[in-house]
Amino acid sequence: MDRTSIAQEELEQGSRFAPRFDEAGLMPAIVVDADSGDVLVLAWMNAEALERTRTSGRVTFWSRSRGRLWTKGETSGNFLEVEEMLVDCDQDALLIRSRPHGPTCHTGARSCFYRRIDPAAEDGNALSPSQG
Amino acid sequence: MDRTSIAQEELEQGSRFAPRFDEAGLMPAIVVDADSGDVLVLAWMNAEALERTRTSGRVTFWSRSRGRLWTKGETSGNFLEVEEMLVDCDQDALLIRSRPHGPTCHTGARSCFYRRIDPAAEDGNALSPSQG
Repeated sequence: MDRTSIAQEELEQGSRFAPRFDEAGLMPAIVVDADSGDVLVLAWMNAEALERTRTSGRVTFWSRSRGRLWTKGETSGNFLEVEEMLVDCDQDALLIRSRPHGPTCHTGARSCFYRRIDPAAEDGNALSPSQG
Repeated sequence: MDRTSIAQEELEQGSRFAPRFDEAGLMPAIVVDADSGDVLVLAWMNAEALERTRTSGRVTFWSRSRGRLWTKGETSGNFLEVEEMLVDCDQDALLIRSRPHGPTCHTGARSCFYRRIDPAAEDGNALSPSQG
């Protein structure tokens, strides 16, 4: 069944998984640590990356900069093992509870979100290390 | 200073906030509950929504479906008070720790991510209520 034929109630409350990709064929996927719940990374999946993630049990993204599938950890060894996958109400975003083999960020940080924004500061000096 | 003139090291490690919006002028923003850490919603901000969120202390998105600024809770009263804002390594995604006034999802659920995906099931019957 094509997604366009799915009524809103079924989309939001039903058991049918009908992922909605954007014009570029992508949807955002949030990965959190299954133990702490901390957000580790936001990246992008196309249908193939999503399928590979489901079948392999390891998080695979579509790298927009490299234009290819990208299994997180394929170079570093820091794979993200899938514990649970969730979808949001209108099925255009994913949430993955995962067990990371090591730091998730390519900078070596545990999470990509390691800087806070001072809401009152000028942009030129608004970022500082997060306490998290 | 234009973002294109920022070296990668400064982008990733510096104190300069240089948010990178996509071709449509948007960036994804993840909102989590400041107390539990649970992911509540993923939505989109343009520069104006980001500025309003910073100055007002309440999360404001850009509604892609309505084509206008959308302060979460403006209709329901279920505002999202900003506790802390973070940015990721390459400054193209935001994470907001927030105190929600009520359920965040328009369906009445506490979080928009209330259904899990069975990785082995056929899409037609892959979703079930999350235990979270």
